[in-house]
Amino acid sequence: MTSAPNVRLRIALAQVDPTVGDIGGNAAIVRDVSRRAAEAGAHLVAFPEMMLTGYPVEDLVFRSSFVGASTTGLAQLATDLQAEGLGDLPVIVGYLDADGPTRPDADTVPGRGARNACAVLHDGRVVTRYFKHHLPNYGVFDEDRYFVPGDTLRVVRVNADGGPVDVALTICEDIWQAGGPFTAAGQARVGLVVNINGSPYELNKDDVRLPLVQRRAREANATVAYLNMVGAQDELVFDGDSMVVAPDGTLLARAPQFAEQLVVLDLDLPTADLDAPHGALGPMRIARTEVANRPAYDTDRRRGDIAERVTDEAEIWQALVLGLCDYVRKNGFKTVVLGLSGGIDSAVVAAIAVDALGPERVYGVSMPSGYSSEHSRDDAADLAKRTGLNYLTEPIEPMVDAFLANMALSGLAVENLQARVRGIILMAHSNQDGHLVLTTGNKSELAVGYSTLYGDSVGGFNPLKDVPKTMVWQLARWRNADAARRDAVPPIPENSITKPPSAELRPGQVDSDSLPEYDVLDAVLADYVDGDVGRDGLLAAGHDAAIVDRVLRMVDLAEYKRRQSAPGPKISIKAFGRDRRLPITSRFREGTS
Amino acid sequence: MTSAPNVRLRIALAQVDPTVGDIGGNAAIVRDVSRRAAEAGAHLVAFPEMMLTGYPVEDLVFRSSFVGASTTGLAQLATDLQAEGLGDLPVIVGYLDADGPTRPDADTVPGRGARNACAVLHDGRVVTRYFKHHLPNYGVFDEDRYFVPGDTLRVVRVNADGGPVDVALTICEDIWQAGGPFTAAGQARVGLVVNINGSPYELNKDDVRLPLVQRRAREANATVAYLNMVGAQDELVFDGDSMVVAPDGTLLARAPQFAEQLVVLDLDLPTADLDAPHGALGPMRIARTEVANRPAYDTDRRRGDIAERVTDEAEIWQALVLGLCDYVRKNGFKTVVLGLSGGIDSAVVAAIAVDALGPERVYGVSMPSGYSSEHSRDDAADLAKRTGLNYLTEPIEPMVDAFLANMALSGLAVENLQARVRGIILMAHSNQDGHLVLTTGNKSELAVGYSTLYGDSVGGFNPLKDVPKTMVWQLARWRNADAARRDAVPPIPENSITKPPSAELRPGQVDSDSLPEYDVLDAVLADYVDGDVGRDGLLAAGHDAAIVDRVLRMVDLAEYKRRQSAPGPKISIKAFGRDRRLPITSRFREGTS
Repeated sequence: MTSAPNVRLRIALAQVDPTVGDIGGNAAIVRDVSRRAAEAGAHLVAFPEMMLTGYPVEDLVFRSSFVGASTTGLAQLATDLQAEGLGDLPVIVGYLDADGPTRPDADTVPGRGARNACAVLHDGRVVTRYFKHHLPNYGVFDEDRYFVPGDTLRVVRVNADGGPVDVALTICEDIWQAGGPFTAAGQARVGLVVNINGSPYELNKDDVRLPLVQRRAREANATVAYLNMVGAQDELVFDGDSMVVAPDGTLLARAPQFAEQLVVLDLDLPTADLDAPHGALGPMRIARTEVANRPAYDTDRRRGDIAERVTDEAEIWQALVLGLCDYVRKNGFKTVVLGLSGGIDSAVVAAIAVDALGPERVYGVSMPSGYSSEHSRDDAADLAKRTGLNYLTEPIEPMVDAFLANMALSGLAVENLQARVRGIILMAHSNQDGHLVLTTGNKSELAVGYSTLYGDSVGGFNPLKDVPKTMVWQLARWRNADAARRDAVPPIPENSITKPPSAELRPGQVDSDSLPEYDVLDAVLADYVDGDVGRDGLLAAGHDAAIVDRVLRMVDLAEYKRRQSAPGPKISIKAFGRDRRLPITSRFREGTS
Repeated sequence: MTSAPNVRLRIALAQVDPTVGDIGGNAAIVRDVSRRAAEAGAHLVAFPEMMLTGYPVEDLVFRSSFVGASTTGLAQLATDLQAEGLGDLPVIVGYLDADGPTRPDADTVPGRGARNACAVLHDGRVVTRYFKHHLPNYGVFDEDRYFVPGDTLRVVRVNADGGPVDVALTICEDIWQAGGPFTAAGQARVGLVVNINGSPYELNKDDVRLPLVQRRAREANATVAYLNMVGAQDELVFDGDSMVVAPDGTLLARAPQFAEQLVVLDLDLPTADLDAPHGALGPMRIARTEVANRPAYDTDRRRGDIAERVTDEAEIWQALVLGLCDYVRKNGFKTVVLGLSGGIDSAVVAAIAVDALGPERVYGVSMPSGYSSEHSRDDAADLAKRTGLNYLTEPIEPMVDAFLANMALSGLAVENLQARVRGIILMAHSNQDGHLVLTTGNKSELAVGYSTLYGDSVGGFNPLKDVPKTMVWQLARWRNADAARRDAVPPIPENSITKPPSAELRPGQVDSDSLPEYDVLDAVLADYVDGDVGRDGLLAAGHDAAIVDRVLRMVDLAEYKRRQSAPGPKISIKAFGRDRRLPITSRFREGTS
């Protein structure tokens, strides 16, 4: 049996933002934040999954030079922490390790290979290490390709105020799957389970996390410290949302989403049970290590803050802003450029970019054609004025006319030509001035292929890649209302929100010529794309048969265009890109095979 | 102990080309080829892995309507074969099955889910089914995402000339990994192991297959019939190369690569051992089924043919021709268009396209600029004349001038503008006339990012995506020499092969201004990209340090451009696309972290 809580451990959870491959920069974050944790009197500090390498590292795992850079970097980090006077603070940090060849075609050793690992650093040394047990291999995760699962639970005994405490180390998926490390932690009678994560954002995932952590805390009969990375890496956004939950399920602390934070609080934990078992016991072997730390004591009691939850729109907006901000920063860009049509998509992308980077780093180009309405030009100019971004105008007629004068084009070819001339103009600005080009096509358009390949799909990053059109409108309304609440200027022109959407590639064109109304379309897409519901299921769910057939045909044929699209922040169950994999060439048509 | 071979079984192996998703069309191939097998007196006919659905089906697995179409299609196929008078011929056919929910987020049942399956059809019914045991999850394979492994070896007793024979069913990876089905087949004392495959082409993979099949034949002490799919699906090319090997390793038959073939031969096999074991025995449970077929007898002895091996160049050329031909056909295109610069890459792509489709379905567009040399125009025209393709000319100066007159561009922006105007012209032809645009950038260029995004990278398919530049030259020389041997016109102008490569985007430009010589570059790329060798390893292998640093920097920065590139046939260990996964945003630089 565990004893009553009589030891006070001050834990620090570093909700921080590493960059894939930047081992030196990531180590610098660990040193900097460890210093702040020590200054706050922490007895233990934890950093996210794969902190030292960033996450996900994908095929870099197969390069032994990269694995070597991680393990060498870890040893160096331990030395540097000691040299900087931080050697007595136990530091839990995620990194990439290997105890065998990491390439699948090399001479593999059964049960050995690359490891998704975490280490405890203390006194200038790597004291112990734990290898992730449950490897996720679904959705955005491919960990069965890269890692070998660990079979040993590491329990670390650290000294806190009032005596030693046993802490079990776990990584990310270890908390999502039943059995394994949390069961073993219960058998090992630990006081605290630390679970470090690189857990990507999905809308409403935060609603699932708290009950999950509570369930595992009860199962392990231990306090659980759940720490997640924050920041964006290519298409993945890590939302933070770190939390601490007591064995009875009480939420003790919770960090905000989408912001860096050092969570520090005191935990009341049972003294380590000196008779607790080790060795082969249940689902995993249990191995124990003692850390001879000499913690500072503080008479003040430090309680945790519990960050308030926000609305779906606020959550998505922050994810998109962070996704863009980190993509620009981590790729070494300073500025972005996008086309401003006066429509809702480019207005929302511009507002996101201004929130992410500031107006002086955003360039908007109005590229009117002969078919552009007067209100389009006015709305684009109004947006520029409201947000303060840099505004340029490049009429496309002279360039379009040069093509038309030299080639015999008609119909769709002329429509697409205009979009492609715009794409060239944006890329020319990018090449000339070093801007990253932003694409503005939303998820609904991408799903049905309603865009011009090498035209409006041109660009290095697309904030709306995973945002359905109906949500684009919701976001615009939310962002404007939020500005009004703060007595700031609503960034998005009302007219861009209310007018019927149009590509303006021929006279009088509107989206509803080619597509169902967006509320109808998005409802079908949610079931077909996110839900994998087939034609019969869609009809049973009440969708109109003619619309279903039209939408499914468009989606099935648009796969190639989607594969050519820019990355963008993932916010839903199935984003196009990392976790939506379909053959480009497939003859399967719902209901017709 | 197995008895001496005293039964003669006439086996038919259908090396055929299914299409992903086209369940009706694939079933029609099975019916048609089963008829031919029956007419040839076969006692048993086998079709490839996932014959009914095509391979790979990727996320279609998660749609229950697709799984249902496969299993319903299988039952219908059994009925149709019977109705067509083919019910007495046992037909082994690969298909998609499921015995539990297939979506990872659905309420999963441990040990149940989607199955990479094969069935035996006889007498209008599905007599038995086998679930693949070893699931590959490396390189182009993601089967751990999609399938649950089977744990039961299926042994089918079929009647042949002289008595019954025991046949074990296995699928693809089952033969590549030691242990499992082949060990179990040995314990089950079968006479024949049928191994059906969807095994993608890689250069020299055929050199590995024969020794592998021989090793497994000895391990199982049985004849092994190895059947592979032929044809291309998106980036994968299946090369056929089906074969039959006796228990002592003797090669009894081998089909050619890259061509459909029905392999029919008589096998001398031991009578089924009526006392052979079943149930839980070794690595797998053994389950037995008897098929009450009444085989026809033929006094002639049918021996197998052994197709000759071809040179590397011939092998690659056939893979590229088949890859393009099937991509065009399976996507419903009739014609292709490409830019002809007079250089080697576009000349080789044009020659591949003409071999794949015939000259009347290939459109070549010469798009000279002010920087295009006279020889470029002449070489492009010469190529057109030699191959007979449809030849057009579209000078780009008027369009380029329209941009330059309206925008202040210089340097790289002007170079890229020319490439992008060419891209627009090709896409306009595509939109106007329905051609598929072919891209012509080779693997070396793609690796280092030496191309213009939305410029020369425009297109729906790239035959050279996985072909290094030095191999492009080798292929050109081989194709011309091969033509000369056959007294045909060598398709590729000698001047396109011998002149120094140039993008001709500024006066006097040659590739060697920006890149190392291609033989040097390709040697570094082979080690760094295919071999995952890091900087230190490259230097140890004798590569020049300055060149290594320059090449590695270019490769690391080009990831984003590569993700925007068209699909193309895979021919090497690591093709860009399906099996080369690196983060777009990574700060890891070899030797500098």
